[in-house]
Amino acid sequence: MAEHKKFSMADTMTRLLDEKKYRSIRDVLVTMNPSDIAVIMEEIEEERLPLLFRLLPKEQAAETFVEMDPELQELLIQGFSDTELKEVLDELYVDDAVDIVEEMPANVVKRILAAAAPEMRREINEILRYPENSAGSLMTTEYVSLRPNMTVGEAILRIRRTGVDKETIYTCYVTKDRMLLGLVTVKDLLLAPDDEMLIEDIMEKNVISVNTLTDQEEVARMLSKYNFLAVPVVDNDGRMVGIVTFDDAMDVLEEEATEDIEIMGGMTPSEKTYLRSTPIDLFLHRIPWLLLLMVSATFTGMIISHFEDALAAQVVLTAFIPMLMDTGGNSGSQSSVTIIRALSLNELSIGDIWSVIWKEIRTAVLCGAVLAVACFGKIMLVDHLLMNNPAVTWVIALVVCLALAITVLVAKVIGCSLPMLAKRLGFDPAVMASPFITTLVDACSLLVYFRIATLLLHI
Amino acid sequence: MAEHKKFSMADTMTRLLDEKKYRSIRDVLVTMNPSDIAVIMEEIEEERLPLLFRLLPKEQAAETFVEMDPELQELLIQGFSDTELKEVLDELYVDDAVDIVEEMPANVVKRILAAAAPEMRREINEILRYPENSAGSLMTTEYVSLRPNMTVGEAILRIRRTGVDKETIYTCYVTKDRMLLGLVTVKDLLLAPDDEMLIEDIMEKNVISVNTLTDQEEVARMLSKYNFLAVPVVDNDGRMVGIVTFDDAMDVLEEEATEDIEIMGGMTPSEKTYLRSTPIDLFLHRIPWLLLLMVSATFTGMIISHFEDALAAQVVLTAFIPMLMDTGGNSGSQSSVTIIRALSLNELSIGDIWSVIWKEIRTAVLCGAVLAVACFGKIMLVDHLLMNNPAVTWVIALVVCLALAITVLVAKVIGCSLPMLAKRLGFDPAVMASPFITTLVDACSLLVYFRIATLLLHI
Repeated sequence: MAEHKKFSMADTMTRLLDEKKYRSIRDVLVTMNPSDIAVIMEEIEEERLPLLFRLLPKEQAAETFVEMDPELQELLIQGFSDTELKEVLDELYVDDAVDIVEEMPANVVKRILAAAAPEMRREINEILRYPENSAGSLMTTEYVSLRPNMTVGEAILRIRRTGVDKETIYTCYVTKDRMLLGLVTVKDLLLAPDDEMLIEDIMEKNVISVNTLTDQEEVARMLSKYNFLAVPVVDNDGRMVGIVTFDDAMDVLEEEATEDIEIMGGMTPSEKTYLRSTPIDLFLHRIPWLLLLMVSATFTGMIISHFEDALAAQVVLTAFIPMLMDTGGNSGSQSSVTIIRALSLNELSIGDIWSVIWKEIRTAVLCGAVLAVACFGKIMLVDHLLMNNPAVTWVIALVVCLALAITVLVAKVIGCSLPMLAKRLGFDPAVMASPFITTLVDACSLLVYFRIATLLLHI
Repeated sequence: MAEHKKFSMADTMTRLLDEKKYRSIRDVLVTMNPSDIAVIMEEIEEERLPLLFRLLPKEQAAETFVEMDPELQELLIQGFSDTELKEVLDELYVDDAVDIVEEMPANVVKRILAAAAPEMRREINEILRYPENSAGSLMTTEYVSLRPNMTVGEAILRIRRTGVDKETIYTCYVTKDRMLLGLVTVKDLLLAPDDEMLIEDIMEKNVISVNTLTDQEEVARMLSKYNFLAVPVVDNDGRMVGIVTFDDAMDVLEEEATEDIEIMGGMTPSEKTYLRSTPIDLFLHRIPWLLLLMVSATFTGMIISHFEDALAAQVVLTAFIPMLMDTGGNSGSQSSVTIIRALSLNELSIGDIWSVIWKEIRTAVLCGAVLAVACFGKIMLVDHLLMNNPAVTWVIALVVCLALAITVLVAKVIGCSLPMLAKRLGFDPAVMASPFITTLVDACSLLVYFRIATLLLHI
């Protein structure tokens, strides 16, 4: 139902545009939130887009522009006159402008930088210098800075004068010669008992800051952990250069979770949403792992070939291969997924590896025992009695269940230790998730299965 | 290295406590952030905990208390005198108090409610009425409310007078007879050109709010989408009852991502961190899916049993079963994981199902074709030429590659449609992730494989 409503909103706008009822369109749009207008913009026909966009009041237009997809932003910029482009840019926060610049082709970037005010151009170029995914590339340079010897009253006055262009005014940073000395919040200022108090006397001096090169995920986790509205970014000399705000941190956490999930699912991470990805995009993100895992499955094939004679003697053994492999794969991915997420959330560190392995071993013994007993019961009841398969003897059942229990143990130990090993070696632990571990566990489970079979069945 | 530093901090505190250097402990602690102190508290020996806690200044003590694990909170409360408990409670925000109450056993809850101020007790009980995971249970009742006929100056004065107890003062809500009329931010108030302006003239009237019963994940996504600091919660009659703030929303987003990842990994979600989970906890969360999937693998076993004669005639076919099953499983989980995440992020809705299936079919054709060609080359080169296995003919290779291509197609269609179907039926789409789909795809891939084999090899 929700989709239906959305569609009709874009349709309504199209009709109103056709009927030239611009006044009404504007009346409706100003009641709406930029993110919601951006959705309409994405659904409306491309040739109507510039007209609809021009109906928005200046500030709202800029905020909507930020929320739109890069493709549409480019389309609009191509249609803008230099004056229009300048007007939109003037309303943008620097970090949003940088985000847009990063997505545009070179010729559009040139136009944007030419149209930006000199101060903004300088700031855009500064942020662009920092590596992707660093605090420097995520930050904005627009924050409120105060001097330590200001009074509370002077500070409030300064906020009132300069605050309109700042991304957040609620956390203000106290600096001297660009060195970060402390912070005060607007709450501190408003609740200060006396307007004549000095900033240096009420400021919080133990300020947690990040370096320009700190990874953006770490910055986001820090904001989330401490419940900060913003965190200051300082360069290697301790000079303050910007702030990262909570809204960008929230986006980073969402992106990183998505990235982890994609990697765990055996894909290279993509920045495009599903609906915007073409089949070619999806193909390119998926085929590398599929190829790699197909080739690595050669080893499992070789193991089976090696025991071909045993299998020929007892064909019934083949029927339990899928169950063994799947249960092993599932046991392993349960452990790896749990560990990968805990590492992501900083709940675990590499030093915990031995306690993790020990915990997984105990869990595996419990799981393995229950599964083995259940499996034995199932085989004897279903395969032996119900389906009356004479080849399924209790020795066969014993072989399968023993192999199952050992497989679960091996799978859980591999599943928990590989992600931690990856982290230790500086790789992304998420790479060590199900697809990879499945292949490894498959090989182990088959080896164990055939060894036990040849031993107990004397084949 | 990081772990090492943390450990020594708790050790340092222990030594200072032994040497009774309370002054120094306090000096160090006041420079620290509550979340960091909580980490020390968790690492220090239990019997030293109350003493260390009592060294904290009142406000910091309360903030640290909130950040601690429920087990430690309970331990501390058990040791508190009634006066101490009252002092900590008085410093808490209502929503934090509710979080604590929800984790405590009945006798501790009784003590907490008895010690709380009447107003707080009333508010705690009110929030406790709402179902778990609803906006009502997540919200705090402590927000700044303004009247529409106040002037800007009066509003600022009201904030200064009442702000100290509010979780956020930066977004203020304009109400009349408890009905939500609009909102103003402190930024609006500070930047207003004239202190005599009326709130109703500067307030934002189009306020996005949520219902007390709205799911917490939806609330969190909304805050993230609109970059709000807080969102107002209204009851069914449109009366404002509280706000949900961005820091709680960030926690919810993290929890929900973890929950999705756990379910996708074939586990029932857990609220405990890995290090706090006992092997029994882990076992109980993991065994249900393992049992279910083991039993459902019976079908794959039955398929193999059914084609036992074909397999006996061409034992070489068995060697490719793991590769087929794994590639099918991986292809399917790539699609399901992508779709599940897109559904979680509201990037997809059920109405998109046909375009999703069509996109997956095209992707599957690309992946299947490349994999089949690569697989054919690999089999002929490695198995046929290099390992000189006479049983591996080009017809066998053809059978395997045809089965592979079809398996990829089937896997991707199943992988993308099951999560959407689950969502349509009101289940959590994450349930339809890899482990479940693997079993289904296994059965399909074996059926396809044996059908093609019996047809082409005339067995």
